[in-house]
Amino acid sequence: MFALTVRDHMMVAHSFHGETFGPARGLHGATFIVDATFRREELDRDNLVVDIGRASAALTEILAALNYRNLDEDPAFRGVNTTTEYLARVVADRMAERVHSGALGEEARGLVGLTVTLHESHVAWASYERAL
Amino acid sequence: MFALTVRDHMMVAHSFHGETFGPARGLHGATFIVDATFRREELDRDNLVVDIGRASAALTEILAALNYRNLDEDPAFRGVNTTTEYLARVVADRMAERVHSGALGEEARGLVGLTVTLHESHVAWASYERAL
Amino acid sequence: MFALTVRDHMMVAHSFHGETFGPARGLHGATFIVDATFRREELDRDNLVVDIGRASAALTEILAALNYRNLDEDPAFRGVNTTTEYLARVVADRMAERVHSGALGEEARGLVGLTVTLHESHVAWASYERAL
Amino acid sequence: MFALTVRDHMMVAHSFHGETFGPARGLHGATFIVDATFRREELDRDNLVVDIGRASAALTEILAALNYRNLDEDPAFRGVNTTTEYLARVVADRMAERVHSGALGEEARGLVGLTVTLHESHVAWASYERAL
Amino acid sequence: MFALTVRDHMMVAHSFHGETFGPARGLHGATFIVDATFRREELDRDNLVVDIGRASAALTEILAALNYRNLDEDPAFRGVNTTTEYLARVVADRMAERVHSGALGEEARGLVGLTVTLHESHVAWASYERAL
Amino acid sequence: MFALTVRDHMMVAHSFHGETFGPARGLHGATFIVDATFRREELDRDNLVVDIGRASAALTEILAALNYRNLDEDPAFRGVNTTTEYLARVVADRMAERVHSGALGEEARGLVGLTVTLHESHVAWASYERAL
Repeated sequence: MFALTVRDHMMVAHSFHGETFGPARGLHGATFIVDATFRREELDRDNLVVDIGRASAALTEILAALNYRNLDEDPAFRGVNTTTEYLARVVADRMAERVHSGALGEEARGLVGLTVTLHESHVAWASYERAL
Repeated sequence: MFALTVRDHMMVAHSFHGETFGPARGLHGATFIVDATFRREELDRDNLVVDIGRASAALTEILAALNYRNLDEDPAFRGVNTTTEYLARVVADRMAERVHSGALGEEARGLVGLTVTLHESHVAWASYERAL
Repeated sequence: MFALTVRDHMMVAHSFHGETFGPARGLHGATFIVDATFRREELDRDNLVVDIGRASAALTEILAALNYRNLDEDPAFRGVNTTTEYLARVVADRMAERVHSGALGEEARGLVGLTVTLHESHVAWASYERAL
Repeated sequence: MFALTVRDHMMVAHSFHGETFGPARGLHGATFIVDATFRREELDRDNLVVDIGRASAALTEILAALNYRNLDEDPAFRGVNTTTEYLARVVADRMAERVHSGALGEEARGLVGLTVTLHESHVAWASYERAL
Repeated sequence: MFALTVRDHMMVAHSFHGETFGPARGLHGATFIVDATFRREELDRDNLVVDIGRASAALTEILAALNYRNLDEDPAFRGVNTTTEYLARVVADRMAERVHSGALGEEARGLVGLTVTLHESHVAWASYERAL
Repeated sequence: MFALTVRDHMMVAHSFHGETFGPARGLHGATFIVDATFRREELDRDNLVVDIGRASAALTEILAALNYRNLDEDPAFRGVNTTTEYLARVVADRMAERVHSGALGEEARGLVGLTVTLHESHVAWASYERAL
């Protein structure tokens, strides 16, 4: 199995609700360093997992819709705890849509899996892994 | 599949026995940067893999029992080569006990797997992965 | 010259004003990984630059006053652009006060300088260096 | 499952052919930071996944055959796009040969899998995973 | 003193001449992770060392002129050993020109110094520091 | 000013004496990731700060005399607290001797300064800077 990962980041504000979160219930923020990992069984005819330029552009585009925002005000997350693990799935699902729509190229339809990891600090990170 | 990782570290002395180890048979030491990764299929009602505060506290507590010690003198490791990979299992098994005892919260009983990685330097690390 | 650095982090929300900032004028956030570096010409009688336990505790305490907050609502920053470089000075100046008040121990009065670096992402960081 | 990883690096020149590659069709180069991860179900009698000294030496030896070269002139890669993901397989397959030939020690025959990851920059890396 | 650093990278081929270089006399390559650090005594009216967007764009532009190339064929480096330390000065000097020409904004004329660091691997890096 | 840094590591046991050290008074250990930084005003005729091969070899040699040892039993450190900052000076001074003796090559006599940094964990490091 082959995998290729590209990295980018976003800087957002948000708050959490529920006793579990303690001080994180207040409005605060995070830099999320975001790794998108694409998997396939065999390389394409160019010897690639996916066109790295298109993969990076897709990741940047997905993050641009979240970057420099207060996620509490994004209708897509109304009433939702936008935890690191939850956001990993959001990014992964939006990337999967792009793979399926052909935005990463025809060859990308041969991808079989995707993992998105969000690093919230040097001591904590979370990921979501899914099939494609 | 979701995963969440927290990082901490410990600083221990130890020695190895057996010809394989060469100069590492002498008493020496290591800083182990320790990553504990928790996995679950679906997020809990707070959108978490596990309460990060409790997970971090559990990891710190487990490492505190080893930190600043000479492992050669720990009865738990009498006659044992406390290699990086072996210690990864020790930490993982002690964390699994805490998950099962409820120390990481009731929701943590929904965890399905655990990986512990110990970085012994910038060029070598080892891990142990187990079910929960 | 000797130096010792300890690292911690904080997660804050804030927004900027002024055309220079473009999309960063919206409320967003950041994880700041914070390095505090202490300098002195000669080591103290324990062969230390500063007691690392006290230095770490002081840094954690300083960051706790900012962590998990919206800096736009902190009276200390009313009307101020809390840029990464500006916050580096805030943390450094608050640390300097602690050094001078004796909170880092009597020996810490022998420190001659301090640098605080805030990493806002894997591709950008800022620092402020001052005498003590 | 246990895993052990060792890290080394190589510095090579190469070029790509095919429209996908854009400016990377010109002769350029890369530092590849190479991680070789070995997996086994149970530790050997020394409590090791593999002898780290032998594993590191094998990785250095494999990379030495590629290091400081123009891969376009290596007969093994004639007409081949030596992408990061492709090279991950090359290194993995060469390591597998060494495991099977006994170069990593008799105990290494108990290894069940191998992953090789090549980091081409701080924002992109690729890997190949195979059974042993 | 304040400092701000931005990071980018380039991937180049080159070779060295002279006995000192041993195997590096052959055509090979490198990924250089490039950090540009800007210094000033006091922050500008926006509380910035330099507009990070403009600084990043300038760095990307400078690296684009070198990226994906064989430096041996660049007329600017005819007969020159393009070592990591030498390239650090090339990037720094080209950045200094941009600062002086106003490409980083009028406020950037208040910068007093610049350091460029090129990381050639996880175990070696070089830098050049100059006044502005 | 130019600088070049090479990185290596050592794994040692030691203990501290004095109330300041708390639990670190027990025999424990550390992995020290060691960075040696060499500085000079102008590059040598090969466009180098120092021959990186010789610099790396010298660092490895210096660390080999400490690596895999209990520093408490090293006569050079009898009664001494071998703190991270103290060891940074030990390594720096031993490197300076090598520079002065010609072990890093004749050109290395043009070096003007040296900094050695020891990373004891991902959250703490210390350095010693000296002239040459």
